Amino acid sequence: MARKTGKPQRPKAQLPRGFDDSFGEDVLVRQRMLSRIAEVYHLHGFDPLETPAIETVEALGKFLPDVDRPMGGVFGFQDEDESWLALRYDMTAPLARVAAQYRNDLPSPYRRYAMGPIWRNEKPGPGRFRQFWQCDADTVGTSTVAADAEICAMLADALQAAGIAREDFVIRINNRKVLNGILEEAGIASEEEEAQRGIALRAIDKLDRLGEDGVRALLGEGRRDESGDFTKGANLSAEQADLIMNFVAAERADGAATCARLRELVGASGQGREGVDELETIAELLEGQGYRAPLARIDPSIVRGLAYYTGPVYEAELAFEIVDEKGERRQFGSVAGGGRYDDLVMRFTGQRTPATGVSIGVDRLLAALRARGGQEAKAARGPVVVLAPERDRMGDYQAIVAELRGAGIRSEVFMGGGTNMGKQLKYADKRRAPLAVIVGSQEREAGTVQIKDLVLGAKLAGEIDSNEEWKAQPAQREVPRGRVLATVRAMLDRPDA
Amino acid sequence: MARKTGKPQRPKAQLPRGFDDSFGEDVLVRQRMLSRIAEVYHLHGFDPLETPAIETVEALGKFLPDVDRPMGGVFGFQDEDESWLALRYDMTAPLARVAAQYRNDLPSPYRRYAMGPIWRNEKPGPGRFRQFWQCDADTVGTSTVAADAEICAMLADALQAAGIAREDFVIRINNRKVLNGILEEAGIASEEEEAQRGIALRAIDKLDRLGEDGVRALLGEGRRDESGDFTKGANLSAEQADLIMNFVAAERADGAATCARLRELVGASGQGREGVDELETIAELLEGQGYRAPLARIDPSIVRGLAYYTGPVYEAELAFEIVDEKGERRQFGSVAGGGRYDDLVMRFTGQRTPATGVSIGVDRLLAALRARGGQEAKAARGPVVVLAPERDRMGDYQAIVAELRGAGIRSEVFMGGGTNMGKQLKYADKRRAPLAVIVGSQEREAGTVQIKDLVLGAKLAGEIDSNEEWKAQPAQREVPRGRVLATVRAMLDRPDA
Repeated sequence: MARKTGKPQRPKAQLPRGFDDSFGEDVLVRQRMLSRIAEVYHLHGFDPLETPAIETVEALGKFLPDVDRPMGGVFGFQDEDESWLALRYDMTAPLARVAAQYRNDLPSPYRRYAMGPIWRNEKPGPGRFRQFWQCDADTVGTSTVAADAEICAMLADALQAAGIAREDFVIRINNRKVLNGILEEAGIASEEEEAQRGIALRAIDKLDRLGEDGVRALLGEGRRDESGDFTKGANLSAEQADLIMNFVAAERADGAATCARLRELVGASGQGREGVDELETIAELLEGQGYRAPLARIDPSIVRGLAYYTGPVYEAELAFEIVDEKGERRQFGSVAGGGRYDDLVMRFTGQRTPATGVSIGVDRLLAALRARGGQEAKAARGPVVVLAPERDRMGDYQAIVAELRGAGIRSEVFMGGGTNMGKQLKYADKRRAPLAVIVGSQEREAGTVQIKDLVLGAKLAGEIDSNEEWKAQPAQREVPRGRVLATVRAMLDRPDA
Repeated sequence: MARKTGKPQRPKAQLPRGFDDSFGEDVLVRQRMLSRIAEVYHLHGFDPLETPAIETVEALGKFLPDVDRPMGGVFGFQDEDESWLALRYDMTAPLARVAAQYRNDLPSPYRRYAMGPIWRNEKPGPGRFRQFWQCDADTVGTSTVAADAEICAMLADALQAAGIAREDFVIRINNRKVLNGILEEAGIASEEEEAQRGIALRAIDKLDRLGEDGVRALLGEGRRDESGDFTKGANLSAEQADLIMNFVAAERADGAATCARLRELVGASGQGREGVDELETIAELLEGQGYRAPLARIDPSIVRGLAYYTGPVYEAELAFEIVDEKGERRQFGSVAGGGRYDDLVMRFTGQRTPATGVSIGVDRLLAALRARGGQEAKAARGPVVVLAPERDRMGDYQAIVAELRGAGIRSEVFMGGGTNMGKQLKYADKRRAPLAVIVGSQEREAGTVQIKDLVLGAKLAGEIDSNEEWKAQPAQREVPRGRVLATVRAMLDRPDA
């Protein structure tokens, strides 16, 4: 059938797939959380940095999240001069560009934090969005692992400031150099064995999900999952796999004991020993500041997915259970992760610029806070609504809200159409107004004001049809006009309001 | 010459043209300003709304800022299903989409505010960026001009909260209906005369720049500017031009007098009279709340560029002079503008949804605050820097910053390479540190701490070569380790610190 022309097509009022709107209290809760985290970062001497959403593709370059699909993971588009631009997919690539671009002006080391949305052009799904918020803190320009320890300690403080109790999370720390040392000891450190190492690394990363047997299968010939799909393994010998499994299970009662065990495993590997030394220093520094196991732990099973890490890696895991979408109880899991990446700035400058930093998944952390629940209920109270039963008396109503606002009480005048009292009260309910202030013609003539407690009122059944009917309700008080502020304040301060 | 291959090309560490980074204090100053404005909006019952950066092109649609180049003004790109997406170019188009999409769930009227970056794919120039911040407040779903008056009053409060003194700005208010009435009276209201009306409207909009004679020339045959370029005029008769010039100059001592004069000018035009009635109501409401001339003024010379306004229009102009890039004194000009747009939501729903709102140009407002100067100097103080003269004593230094931070004092340990004292102090200067805390081997053995006042120290000339030399300076104090917090606090609280 031919499409009708002439008739204007109405556009659909909807977002592209994988995007979402945030309303009212959701926006405020995130802002409050981020400003508490920013306070912690600021206190530690970190400065805010805000880069634009758009970068050149060259600047984002090699470090796309999905190296196999160079333009696949990002939103890219051409500028008028045909050069390619893209939306940032994380906060680390823009930081590397900034560290290179302003290297003569920035203090060194440069400590910065950044908070904002990032974009991933990936297949959206339930709970998987294409725009989400990250909150990063990084130190650029220092090779001392004291900087890594500082980030781990600050991350712990930030999570606490955000509202996660200290007993509800752990910071797990590992070191890529130790892993590389183990691979050296296992005899798979040469360039030709890069693919094997990649498979081994990804296998370790899946320990949580697959368990020891699954990982061991992937280190060997491979693994068939429940659906029948086969994943090719690293084809390591039993001895090689043993060494790696010993490494993964090397955690002991405290940092010192874990490091001692790791030192046995890395044997003669220079890189491995250096990694263990670094972990030891980090553990000492953290313990010295009161961040000790179980809060902060050296955990060799943590490898972190990204290829660019060169030394310490760390993540924050929430140590409480939630009920997931399938109704199953499971650990909440990771809310933040990071590590040392000494080569990212070098691609611009040719000079090695050591750096380390962490990224908090803001939306996951908010979900965790919601799962822990509680504190938001009271804050979600709406404004006091002043009804407008007589449309030519708008000035009187404005005078009331001006008085309330002057005392810091959030309030507004009803400005919808019509003077129907039921409709206006319905609006006040939709606004979650704790109180409605009413001056009808009778009150105006008597010089009084009605103040209706909508929370109490909601407990009383039935529809409200007439002025007379709801006047009789106990949730309502009539006071002289001059007492409106004092009465509103008193009613708002009641414990159940 | 053939380009060398094989050698890896280093990417340039730079942003695309028209984009910029914000560092440290600049980010904080904007955040503080926006949160003060948000407080005002919140107090007035407005709820935050955050829409994603990306919308479908259909949703942004007809209301692109530059209607002559449909995709010219925005950053557009194709989704994987080949549909076109674009970055939002303002906050109003996404609000219209939200108002349509959630119309059954949102309270009506819906008051919302939104703060964030927007993107314009325009030719960048000095001071002209392709990403900048806006801060909007709108009321959707009410036709009463009490809502327009509320936005104007709230805008005045917001500018004051941002730090602009009440005597330093004016809110100018006009009404498109009055202008339409004038055009009716002038006999150029028919559809065939749309082009003429467009030229007349743009001419009035240039009153500030061209003066009365320039506008009059554009209303007549046209105008040749200093460069010799000729702009075609509206070809109105002298009588028609007189009527329009009388309208533009119709402002009188107060709102009531201005409205009386406008009523004479619109004559029998129904739309014109309706517009004057609306302006009268707005002036009464604003005066009743204490917003009277010169703060809030009915000013018929304000027309606002955008085609979609249907009723009251308003803008905030800063009433002080600045010295511009060319060294010339001029009025700072507009920092916010808005108006009533009753048709934007209708394109989605087919139903008329009256709405009104304002947009603050955040970067312009920040520039205005900088031009007024002063308040930022003290806030820009950096953290206390604890130097690290002995690299294996990092734990000691961390203990000092932990103590300072526990008391809310921003502080950090130097983590750069090397133990050279001059280099570390240079770092502290670059960080604008007010104080440096130093524990060298001598102090460590003596159980003391050196605290150096860098502000005072900067006043003393000469390079620092040795430990001995700067110990002799009066800007430095040696105290027992146990007195470090108390001493730092006392030194920070000194009036010149």
